[in-house]
Amino acid sequence: MQNMYQPQQSSQRPDKSNRARMLISCPDRPGIVAAVSHFLYEHGANIVQSDQYSMDPGGGMFFIRFDFDLTDMERELPVLQEDFARVADRFDMKWSTFRASRKKRLAIFVSKEDHCLLELLWQWQAGDLEAEIAMVISNHNDMRPLVESFGIPYHHIPVTADTKAESEKKQLEAVADKVDLVVLARYMQIISPKFIEQFPNRIINIHHSFLPAFVGGKPYAQAYQRGVKIIGATAHYVTEELDGGPIIEQDVQRVSHRDNVDDLKRIGRTIERVVLARAVKWHSEDRLLVHQNKTVVFN
Amino acid sequence: MQNMYQPQQSSQRPDKSNRARMLISCPDRPGIVAAVSHFLYEHGANIVQSDQYSMDPGGGMFFIRFDFDLTDMERELPVLQEDFARVADRFDMKWSTFRASRKKRLAIFVSKEDHCLLELLWQWQAGDLEAEIAMVISNHNDMRPLVESFGIPYHHIPVTADTKAESEKKQLEAVADKVDLVVLARYMQIISPKFIEQFPNRIINIHHSFLPAFVGGKPYAQAYQRGVKIIGATAHYVTEELDGGPIIEQDVQRVSHRDNVDDLKRIGRTIERVVLARAVKWHSEDRLLVHQNKTVVFN
Amino acid sequence: MQNMYQPQQSSQRPDKSNRARMLISCPDRPGIVAAVSHFLYEHGANIVQSDQYSMDPGGGMFFIRFDFDLTDMERELPVLQEDFARVADRFDMKWSTFRASRKKRLAIFVSKEDHCLLELLWQWQAGDLEAEIAMVISNHNDMRPLVESFGIPYHHIPVTADTKAESEKKQLEAVADKVDLVVLARYMQIISPKFIEQFPNRIINIHHSFLPAFVGGKPYAQAYQRGVKIIGATAHYVTEELDGGPIIEQDVQRVSHRDNVDDLKRIGRTIERVVLARAVKWHSEDRLLVHQNKTVVFN
Amino acid sequence: MQNMYQPQQSSQRPDKSNRARMLISCPDRPGIVAAVSHFLYEHGANIVQSDQYSMDPGGGMFFIRFDFDLTDMERELPVLQEDFARVADRFDMKWSTFRASRKKRLAIFVSKEDHCLLELLWQWQAGDLEAEIAMVISNHNDMRPLVESFGIPYHHIPVTADTKAESEKKQLEAVADKVDLVVLARYMQIISPKFIEQFPNRIINIHHSFLPAFVGGKPYAQAYQRGVKIIGATAHYVTEELDGGPIIEQDVQRVSHRDNVDDLKRIGRTIERVVLARAVKWHSEDRLLVHQNKTVVFN
Repeated sequence: MQNMYQPQQSSQRPDKSNRARMLISCPDRPGIVAAVSHFLYEHGANIVQSDQYSMDPGGGMFFIRFDFDLTDMERELPVLQEDFARVADRFDMKWSTFRASRKKRLAIFVSKEDHCLLELLWQWQAGDLEAEIAMVISNHNDMRPLVESFGIPYHHIPVTADTKAESEKKQLEAVADKVDLVVLARYMQIISPKFIEQFPNRIINIHHSFLPAFVGGKPYAQAYQRGVKIIGATAHYVTEELDGGPIIEQDVQRVSHRDNVDDLKRIGRTIERVVLARAVKWHSEDRLLVHQNKTVVFN
Repeated sequence: MQNMYQPQQSSQRPDKSNRARMLISCPDRPGIVAAVSHFLYEHGANIVQSDQYSMDPGGGMFFIRFDFDLTDMERELPVLQEDFARVADRFDMKWSTFRASRKKRLAIFVSKEDHCLLELLWQWQAGDLEAEIAMVISNHNDMRPLVESFGIPYHHIPVTADTKAESEKKQLEAVADKVDLVVLARYMQIISPKFIEQFPNRIINIHHSFLPAFVGGKPYAQAYQRGVKIIGATAHYVTEELDGGPIIEQDVQRVSHRDNVDDLKRIGRTIERVVLARAVKWHSEDRLLVHQNKTVVFN
Repeated sequence: MQNMYQPQQSSQRPDKSNRARMLISCPDRPGIVAAVSHFLYEHGANIVQSDQYSMDPGGGMFFIRFDFDLTDMERELPVLQEDFARVADRFDMKWSTFRASRKKRLAIFVSKEDHCLLELLWQWQAGDLEAEIAMVISNHNDMRPLVESFGIPYHHIPVTADTKAESEKKQLEAVADKVDLVVLARYMQIISPKFIEQFPNRIINIHHSFLPAFVGGKPYAQAYQRGVKIIGATAHYVTEELDGGPIIEQDVQRVSHRDNVDDLKRIGRTIERVVLARAVKWHSEDRLLVHQNKTVVFN
Repeated sequence: MQNMYQPQQSSQRPDKSNRARMLISCPDRPGIVAAVSHFLYEHGANIVQSDQYSMDPGGGMFFIRFDFDLTDMERELPVLQEDFARVADRFDMKWSTFRASRKKRLAIFVSKEDHCLLELLWQWQAGDLEAEIAMVISNHNDMRPLVESFGIPYHHIPVTADTKAESEKKQLEAVADKVDLVVLARYMQIISPKFIEQFPNRIINIHHSFLPAFVGGKPYAQAYQRGVKIIGATAHYVTEELDGGPIIEQDVQRVSHRDNVDDLKRIGRTIERVVLARAVKWHSEDRLLVHQNKTVVFN
């Protein structure tokens, strides 16, 4: 079967082969911006965009993101990376550089609900998601025809209580060295600490959120009974603390007493898909920094 | 000192001396709307607006609100009320009627934060809040000049751990037979069950809300540390379960990592004032019905 | 090729075979609700939901929508329709009844942009759009594989300046007696008055909207140059006045100086698809009444 | 009469006596950030925050805002300003520096509607508006008691068709050398080009906005007749082109067919006050740059 979709090649899309990005976190002190921007200038980098955030001028953390262009990426970036170690040491920096043209490779994990997967596929084919969807992994086989119609490999890896460890081993083999980011697009299985430590701050999950939160099962039923007026969704990086990792994005929608439990679930799905898609987009564009249990979002 | 503010008398404001409202809750079954609207028609009432909500056609509760005009309110409303008992009995209804011209009398309780009080005073003087602010009661004396400049009585009733029971007695004396609704506009003392039972579904409270909720103290600090992207506020009727009563209204605002704890508090105040004002407005216009722990909002 | 998508059959979806809807517009006067609800009661209809709106109690128009259940739809609805003529005459009503189980049949017109079509297809397959997509008509052939993968007939009817009249004739033949609603999902050709009069208040169009509006071509470029902070979209019924028909729904999104013209267009597409989908959903559920150049939306 | 309000002195409010801000616009080219941040570092300035925006990497304009601290503001800032001329010349920069502790002085112009004035007074007294309200000027005397109760001078300068020129002369005398920003808070008189040229990009106006816009008088009535679902407001700098100056901020609110013309006006007032207050706040905090007819908002 032919692929029905291909990411659109917009003629207006700027060539990004010479664009790189740098993310830095370090303790705040005078001279950081001066040192880094001077360094970049001396290495022939033209700063196109920078965003910075200082948690607290008197002794907190400092975060900065640079977009810059190099005229000869292949030759100049490795030199720049090597030389930057001196600057980084001086300021005790954690730092990374990324080529804009080297798209992040995603593995999307799904179970039976397709709304989050569909939004990602759609944004990808519309050219709005700068990433490569390397594979979809599911504990069910339901979405194979859909996924393969986009020309994307589909791995069906069943998970049962007995085979959990073995299934995860298969998942790890499938993604090893092949993906930069794991997206849990309504994947209804718990990810083990062992898996999580392979992808620190590189697994994104989505779940519904309520105002106020409801403890216990059937949160939509509880929200209905309490008559909440707003429901939401939260995308976060996965840490060992269940649903307790750094929040990347949230959004909400108004509801009313007229919305029954099914309506609330339907609205919840709509919020989940847009919130997850934004989080994945920002990660793919290197717009996210994590410090302790908090994200800095340069968008 | 002269009153600087008086509620504006808009020439465009329609005369409501002949307008009444009826609120009904009852078990759902066929013929309710027909029976009530036929009854109103026979009693000379012209239905101007009706809103209804059926929780579940197959055996749930039914809620309806009518706005209607009578040509001679003084004479006709008492007759209508007396006669309606037969209809109400037949359908096992809980019901109330209200004259639109008989404004709800409010007691506003405040402590030291003035933002919620100011919004209510302001909307009242702009003519946007159809209510009478009968008094302000505070455990501090700080806002007396402000409140009295609006021509509104101010009762300073200090509250200490030792005098709590006595203070509440004074509060009850102050409001007895004088107010229809108690508004806790950032009043930082716990209201006792005894007070609450005097005003069932007639005490409105406001508090901040987070997505997700944070257990324990200093919620804004926790929200900051977790990097939440949305903060909100909830207005609810006060029941014995602390902050667990029926939700009337909620709203939210986006925040970012750049907002420090003080910023979050400032934004939180802005949301609180608009959410509380909406809840008070809806109650004052008889737009709220309570069933179990849920409100039906006909707005 | 097999159809990859079928509308989901939710086990929780209530059976609507006995559900009907009635929409009424008439000059306002006392007794309308009483008369109609009494009529429905006498004909065995159980009112599940009603919404009404009175433009102006002293002499304006009155609008009402009823959801009701009949125990034997096949037998009872025709009788009810026949008998209702007497009530309608008495109050000078325009009225319609609809069976909820008789889904609206849609013809979706598209050109080259697929975002609005995709949203409709997606909501339909998710079971969120109560309608039947009878066909897609396009002046291009680009989207045939996509549309046919959903099992939906695709009509390629090219349009050129010379063949415009003939093309429209083909379009009319394709839709005649086969569709209830025409959805212009970014269809970039002008619809002639002759076509419009065949579908009065049954053609929905979507277009971008700005705050303020910009006269002349390239509105996104103008919006960028003026530095607008909000862009939006408007769904409306098509009338002979270009983009001047009754507004059904609007929504907006915040933008900033950082969004270039391409960003604004991308954001605009996202708003367009959700706004159009809401308008189509509301029409499909008989929630829209038109009076003069204004819609009443009972949602 | 005593002043009832004074801006709150928050104990948590950080001392800003050593904080300065710098705004720069210039043609984009490599090395700007490096040059400026190196310059600041050499002059002992600690960059606390920077925001930058590049319109188009290949030859557009570049905008940057720095927040920085100096240990001895009195002595060091003049030196820094003098020395910066060399950097500015090299890059053809337009630039300004501001001390955070030197609050902007505002003249607020009002006519008869008080909602925008009240919001500004309120935010000022709550300590949320970093500015000094130097005076209120009005063509009516209505708001004198209110304004004077805040301890703010009130100038009543009547305006008639005959005395327009003379009135404006009095206004200019009142504000000359005394104010940094003129805020038209629903001031219903046209400001002459002569006045405008005294305050280039230093007069902020607020007006309602619709989606779509309506040409001609009574826009709220037109919006009602067309059944708009969203209304908004726009704050902009005043230029000679009426309501055509650079947009600073916009916001909107949903409305429905149930909102009559008075409701729309009331909702419009609520949007106007928050949008104007945000624009004034951002100007007061030196967060706005103007290029051609567009603002860059660093917030």
